[in-house]
Parts: sequence; structure tokens; C-alpha cells
Amino acid sequence: MSLRIYVDFKMPSEARRWLENNVGEHELIFPERPMTTVLANVATDPQIQTADIAFGQPNVQAIEQAANLRWLSISSSGMTRYDNDAFRALMQQRQTLVTHSATVYNRACALHAFSFMLAEARKLPEALETRVAHSHPGWPDIRSRSTLLEGDSVLIVGYGAIGRRLAELLEPLGMTIKGYRRTPRGDESIPMVTAEEYPFALASADHVINILPESDATKNFFNARSFATMKYGAVFYNIGRGTTVDQDALAEFLLFKKLKAAWLDVTTPEPLPRGHMLLSLPNCHVTPHIAGGHRGEHLTLIRHFIDNLRRFERGEALVDQVM
Amino acid sequence: MSLRIYVDFKMPSEARRWLENNVGEHELIFPERPMTTVLANVATDPQIQTADIAFGQPNVQAIEQAANLRWLSISSSGMTRYDNDAFRALMQQRQTLVTHSATVYNRACALHAFSFMLAEARKLPEALETRVAHSHPGWPDIRSRSTLLEGDSVLIVGYGAIGRRLAELLEPLGMTIKGYRRTPRGDESIPMVTAEEYPFALASADHVINILPESDATKNFFNARSFATMKYGAVFYNIGRGTTVDQDALAEFLLFKKLKAAWLDVTTPEPLPRGHMLLSLPNCHVTPHIAGGHRGEHLTLIRHFIDNLRRFERGEALVDQVM
Repeated sequence: MSLRIYVDFKMPSEARRWLENNVGEHELIFPERPMTTVLANVATDPQIQTADIAFGQPNVQAIEQAANLRWLSISSSGMTRYDNDAFRALMQQRQTLVTHSATVYNRACALHAFSFMLAEARKLPEALETRVAHSHPGWPDIRSRSTLLEGDSVLIVGYGAIGRRLAELLEPLGMTIKGYRRTPRGDESIPMVTAEEYPFALASADHVINILPESDATKNFFNARSFATMKYGAVFYNIGRGTTVDQDALAEFLLFKKLKAAWLDVTTPEPLPRGHMLLSLPNCHVTPHIAGGHRGEHLTLIRHFIDNLRRFERGEALVDQVM
Repeated sequence: MSLRIYVDFKMPSEARRWLENNVGEHELIFPERPMTTVLANVATDPQIQTADIAFGQPNVQAIEQAANLRWLSISSSGMTRYDNDAFRALMQQRQTLVTHSATVYNRACALHAFSFMLAEARKLPEALETRVAHSHPGWPDIRSRSTLLEGDSVLIVGYGAIGRRLAELLEPLGMTIKGYRRTPRGDESIPMVTAEEYPFALASADHVINILPESDATKNFFNARSFATMKYGAVFYNIGRGTTVDQDALAEFLLFKKLKAAWLDVTTPEPLPRGHMLLSLPNCHVTPHIAGGHRGEHLTLIRHFIDNLRRFERGEALVDQVM
């Protein structure tokens, strides 16, 4: 049985060929003007109305009009635009399956967070700039501010697949690692703290890793109260979503050095405008939402979709199913 | 039996107190003008002539005059000034034990090299500078040049305690790791390549980590021929000694991008003079010989010495003994 698969994002020609070669008997439908990024918002394309499967990040209006849609395969980890009760109800009523592609980006995101931790430990931004000589007082100074991370405590907020991978990477370092998530499942690889324990865990962590997704519940989750609770000299990392942080409060706590440093892959907005407070602080380090990126990313994404397509054909459970 | 211990380097007062409190019945002798760094060269202090033990990096002339010296505890990993046949013969004739302090710095050095590898994989120097927006062509570009390291091959040249630790840190990343050392001992944690296999291993490595010490045998070990042998797009790291690399050749291979990048913690001289070729190349990243540095470094060093002093008192084998 041939299915109509609507693909709404732009990919390198190599990835598109791979998709075409592996899709089997099914029909691929590409919009005339594909999205260049999964985060853009485009007008509804009428072609989606007849699709059985949508792969990408079509807007909600388009999905509402796609009455035949049996499976929505979201091409990103994030799914903010779909993560609400009304959309869940619609999908349930229509019996449409929804998957995201977290598996594709998890390992890169975890590695990116880990690279932040090591760059901070070894003072790389400063060390790559300074040409300090052995005889200069600045030399023992930067050496003594570099750390081994051993014995430090880490709190992973928004523990999930990325947190699990990060904990694997941290394993040889001899750190104390705890996690926090809204709904613990019991299969976590590291100890979870409860909501009651959370403020105490936050207060004692040397490294706080924010991997929270965007939602109404996570907006400004990290705010002035959080930063005030945190340990003097703690480091804050964000590879989740920019909206989960009160950036004014963060800037203030970085400015007077209650927090030693912040490493952010995500901000609000992205990119931050020239002259933004967070960009002018020497202890704030920002990368432009690239944590999930990696060489061959589009091929991994296509492979993830094709693997799920084979499962879908056989009526099996899909990987990364969220609705 | 009280021994006279000559200590020739400057340490924080906290570390000095720790040394004084733990040295037991022995007598500590400090020069009037202690060395501020272990790499400086100072005139001979007559006090060393009566010492039983020397702790630091006294110059060879001073040690020759120290007729009673039974143990030289070098406070660094490197021991270039002592690493020659004449000095070995003198120590053997006098029955003076010689230890260095590699154990103190190994973990930091390995972590520093690891931080280089992750910063390169995640393109941190570039990513921390750019404010590229999602809609900009530069955004998918930097994402696609970031890597997971998985499946990449690593060659550790000058495998020893630092290489062993680095291999532990790399373990969760799924890389292929090989090592090379002058004299394999059979207890290495990763496969060693022989001298015959070495050029082939060099030619196939994505990451070449140089941890060679300084000696006549290692001078310009990495030269134009090495870089020509290396894989197109390989990355070169140096946390050994600057003299082991022909820097002009390195600059040339970086300039025309046969090598993707170099990450150097050591150079010749240190620091490199303003305007040096290697400092002007955007794919060359230099930190100022801080790989071994870490918070509490002096306390770790004192502890290493005191532990060995207890062994010395009991006539046991010393840790990090090299002669």
C-alpha cells in the first residue's frame, strides 16, 4: 500500500537521494518552497491535506487540515508548537501518531554540553587569548583556577535521553551526578531528586545543566530565586530552550559573580541582538543553537525516519513516539 | 634520623604550612630567593650542598655539588635538564634516587587534551564568536562541521600515564584509539603500534595527540614529513613539549589546510612572540602551558612528596622513580 509522505524541510541533495532511494513504494511530496530551517513558520501548503504521513515541522493549522494524516514525524527534538492539550486531543481523536527526532540529536547535544563543561574547567576562552609567560603572576593564577572536575557535583535539570548520554560521558571524571525531571520513570541511569529535594540539590551543585524543553510550565523556570539558591561559584549551562531562563536575572548574577560562569547554546531571542547584556559579560559564553548539529546530521535524520517508516508499515511501536 | 630537605620552589603559604606540618622530624631548608616557577634557572644556592634530599628543580651544577644528596624529587613532569647519560651516570655512582612528579599532573594534562578534542569537535572557538541566525546559510554550515567524534581514530604519540588517562576519558566516545611509545612495556591499556607500523597509524589517524617529552631523540619528531604523512583534515594536538615539533612545518600545513587544526599547550618559545605565524592562523589554538595546572595543584604536589618521603624513610620503592 503506497502512502503519501509530505516532507516540508530542505535537506542536502545527498540526504534527499538517500530518502528517495529508501522510501520504497511510497510517494514523496515536497512543497514548492521548502522550509530552510525547522524553526521557520511558513504558510500552509495545500499538498499536506492529502498526506498520510508528514515529516518535518508543518504548522498546526496545516495539520488540522490534513484529515488523512496517520503519522506526524517531527524532524526536531523540540516540539513546542505541538506540546499542548488541544493538539494532543486532536491527534488522539484522529488516531494520528506523533514522533519527534530526539534520538538523532541526543548524542550531539550531550557532547556539546560536555564540551562546555571541559572548556570551563580548563578555562579555554581565557587560556586561548592570553599569552602569559611562566614568570608572570598570571600564569600560576590561571593554572590554579583550572580544575579536574573530580569530586564536583552536577545537577541535570530536565533529565531525559540527553541527560542519560551526558551522565555516560561524565562517568570517568569522578563527579557526583543527580537528575531532576517532572515525572521520574524509575529507569533513570542516575539518582533522581524529588520536587521537595530539588531546592537542596540546586543549592549544592557545582554545575547545573538545564535541558528543559519549552512549555508554559518551564517558562522562566530558572529565575532570580533559582540563581539566588545556587551555590556561590556554581556554573550554569543551558542546552534546553532559551525561554526557560530569566535572562535579566542570569545576567545580574553573572555580573556580581555569584555564578562563576554561564554557557548557553540557546537564548531568547536567537541570536541575541548586538550589545545584549549577556554578550558583554566575560563570564557568559554563547553558541548559536548548534548543540544538536553534527556532520551527517541529515542522513541520521533520514535514517531515523526510514527506520520508523519500516516500523509503521509493520504496525510496530515507533521510536521517539510522543503522542 | 633527621634529614635535611632542600626545597627550591615557591609555593602558596597554605601548601608550605602543609609541608611543614607533615615533614615530621626532618629539617626543611628554603633558599632565600625561591624559584617562582619550576622552569626558571637560578644561580646555585650553597645550602643545597649539605642537603640529603632536594625537592624542586635545582640546576645540575648545584646537584653536582650536593655530595650528600640521596634523593632528588623533581617537582615537575618534565625532566629535560636531567635526562642525559652523564647525569644518569652521576646519580648511579652516588646512589642518588631520582623521582619526578608526573602523577601530580597526569590527570589535568589528560583532561586538558580532552578539552581540546571536544572544543575542536564542537567548533567552540568559532561558535563562541559567531552570532549566526537560524535562517543564515552559516548556521547549517557550522552545525554540519561539528562532529560527534564517534568512529574517529586517535593516535597517542608518547603514550604513558597521561595517554592512559586520556584513553579512559575517550572510552565512552566510541573512537578507535592506538598508542605509540619508544619502549612498550606490555601493560598498556590500548593497542600499541610498532615503529614499523607507526607511519601507517599516523597516516590513518583523525586525531594525533603528541605527549612526547623533550630530549635529543624527540627534537622535531613532528616535522614536514610527519605532517605530509598525516591524513587530509587531521587534527594535531601537543601537550608534550614544544621542541618536539617543527613549528614552521606545522604552520605551513595549517595554512594550506592539509591539517584541519592544531591545538597546542606547548610551543617554542613560551609564550610565542606577538605576531608569530602560529598565532595568526585561525585554525591554530594555543594555551600557555597550563595543561598540568589545577586547583590544589601545590597541595597535590606536597602530598606526592610526603607520601614518597614516608616510603623513603621505610626504604620502600618510590612512586614516579626515574633513576
